[in-house]
Amino acid sequence: MPLNPPGPLSLVPFVSVQHMMQLVVESGVERMLADLAAYIEQDFRRWEQFDKTPRIASHSSAGVIELMPTSDGVTYAFKYVNGHPKNMRSGRQTVTAFGVLADVDTGYPLLLTEMTLLTALRTAATSAVAAKYLAPANSRVMAVIGNGAQCEFQALAFKAICGIDTVRLYDIDSRATAKAVQNLIGSGLTVVPCTSAEQAVEGAQVITTCTADKQYATILSDNMVGTGVHLNAIGGDCPGKTELHRDILLRSEIFVEYPPQTRIEGEIQQLAPEHPVTELWQVITGAATGRADPRQVTLFDSVGFAIEDFSALRYVHDRIKGTALYTPLDLLADPDEPRDLYGMLLRAAA
Amino acid sequence: MPLNPPGPLSLVPFVSVQHMMQLVVESGVERMLADLAAYIEQDFRRWEQFDKTPRIASHSSAGVIELMPTSDGVTYAFKYVNGHPKNMRSGRQTVTAFGVLADVDTGYPLLLTEMTLLTALRTAATSAVAAKYLAPANSRVMAVIGNGAQCEFQALAFKAICGIDTVRLYDIDSRATAKAVQNLIGSGLTVVPCTSAEQAVEGAQVITTCTADKQYATILSDNMVGTGVHLNAIGGDCPGKTELHRDILLRSEIFVEYPPQTRIEGEIQQLAPEHPVTELWQVITGAATGRADPRQVTLFDSVGFAIEDFSALRYVHDRIKGTALYTPLDLLADPDEPRDLYGMLLRAAA
Repeated sequence: MPLNPPGPLSLVPFVSVQHMMQLVVESGVERMLADLAAYIEQDFRRWEQFDKTPRIASHSSAGVIELMPTSDGVTYAFKYVNGHPKNMRSGRQTVTAFGVLADVDTGYPLLLTEMTLLTALRTAATSAVAAKYLAPANSRVMAVIGNGAQCEFQALAFKAICGIDTVRLYDIDSRATAKAVQNLIGSGLTVVPCTSAEQAVEGAQVITTCTADKQYATILSDNMVGTGVHLNAIGGDCPGKTELHRDILLRSEIFVEYPPQTRIEGEIQQLAPEHPVTELWQVITGAATGRADPRQVTLFDSVGFAIEDFSALRYVHDRIKGTALYTPLDLLADPDEPRDLYGMLLRAAA
Repeated sequence: MPLNPPGPLSLVPFVSVQHMMQLVVESGVERMLADLAAYIEQDFRRWEQFDKTPRIASHSSAGVIELMPTSDGVTYAFKYVNGHPKNMRSGRQTVTAFGVLADVDTGYPLLLTEMTLLTALRTAATSAVAAKYLAPANSRVMAVIGNGAQCEFQALAFKAICGIDTVRLYDIDSRATAKAVQNLIGSGLTVVPCTSAEQAVEGAQVITTCTADKQYATILSDNMVGTGVHLNAIGGDCPGKTELHRDILLRSEIFVEYPPQTRIEGEIQQLAPEHPVTELWQVITGAATGRADPRQVTLFDSVGFAIEDFSALRYVHDRIKGTALYTPLDLLADPDEPRDLYGMLLRAAA
């Protein structure tokens, strides 16, 4: 059936996985992480302009599917993301995602993009932004416990944004550690594979936990965490899933993205609902204190918030302009006359 | 940069607007409306199996952007849809939409499709399903007030599913009526263009209102609605937007999709929160009474609910199997080893 080609209002730029890989490679991963961090920091500075809501989760025994919308009144964004720890067994990603940026004035999408890679990048960039404000001065050594899909992105973000030069890696599966070691050859980081979490945290000023089991787990026990340390807890993202022993939380200064969501999903679900936390955006604007003392234990209880995805989508939208890093997708019906949707069908049939 | 072709786990079937038009034309619009109605009726019969939540709306002065998720525990669906009454002035659709069906067990999307056309079709099919249970026996004449993008779909759905043979059309813009009259030539319907809403409702057993202004409006006043009539109010879909005079509601038996959402968005936002309404799915299963008397005024206060989109997505997913009515979209990252997301990037760069 011959059809008229789609009109310009019907086309939405689409960034496929292949295009996203090309974008990362052409940008350079550390440069892209730094650019994403800058976009995220910009948006955290204007946090109050955003509509905020805890993400809308659909839980099942196998995992969770979430929608994460936000808007600054001019641009709207949402991400679709799943979390299915057992996916790995069938060769699938634990976390996959895609997202959309849209124009608030018309409701028309401006961009559709893969976000599996982009989420890994924005999560690492957000962690590094938080650590820039919270980690001890002149931190050089980071432990990364959990060497799955997120591990190398964390290492490179902390190198690019926080000056980390050494990463100490541990995973209950040594093959995951070996994979990360191999991937980080030539990155400029000193990479130390470790055989226990205790060994990994030795001498580290920053400890990142990014494990994926959907259960209460104790990746770090209280005796493993000394003073003068920044904890970057990434892996908690579900009710019932935590990584840190409660005693660590009780002696940490806790920083979060959006309290109503973190209370449900983060490490602090182990604490009383009124336990004091500081919002990261307020540290960035200067309205709240970050690290007050070199001997403090700071904890970024990160669960991932929609504004970070908004920033990442905004970055990609800006970045692909004038490039060949997208394809136009015939996503929106565009009749000659807006009210004549049925006529468009009739003409297609003719 | 040469890249490996995307692996099979990365690909998600995508139905573009062009493909959807082809699907409608190849199916025949009335056949497709009847098939959609059957899918919707099936899902309304198992209403209790679904996760239900009012849609998540982001309001602005120009309109609204909404996400509509639902799941039956096996399959998850969501729709992105906007409502921007002023869009027409810039040649855009008031309502555009796209949607995704996903596998609950893996969180992986199974289908991405345009839903501007599909929403028009599923809305009309839902209206006709409701009228099948609620309209006076042997209804033959329907008034359609508001002759925009939804009008012809309503007319054809009521012909295909309810046996309507005559439609009486009115719009404040006579060009919209002329467009609908023109489009319905050859449909087998007797089409009567009218110059007032009063004229349009004369002798009609079914009255459909589908106007788009974002305001409290009185498309129908009390004296225009006699007895033995079924009202199908489509155009209300926002807080602050209604079409019917409150007095009509007070003498109607009111049927709704999902009360928590309809109380916010529907005609019944004009009534007390405890005003009795009947859920349509209970009429379909036989748990509640539909039309009890030929002289009753029944009102389907339709705002559109996520389960209808679920049904429509399920239909499209079934329908495109073995056809060329979709393209595979490289939406999901699929590394050789799931934890090696960064390695996939490295290999792309090499």
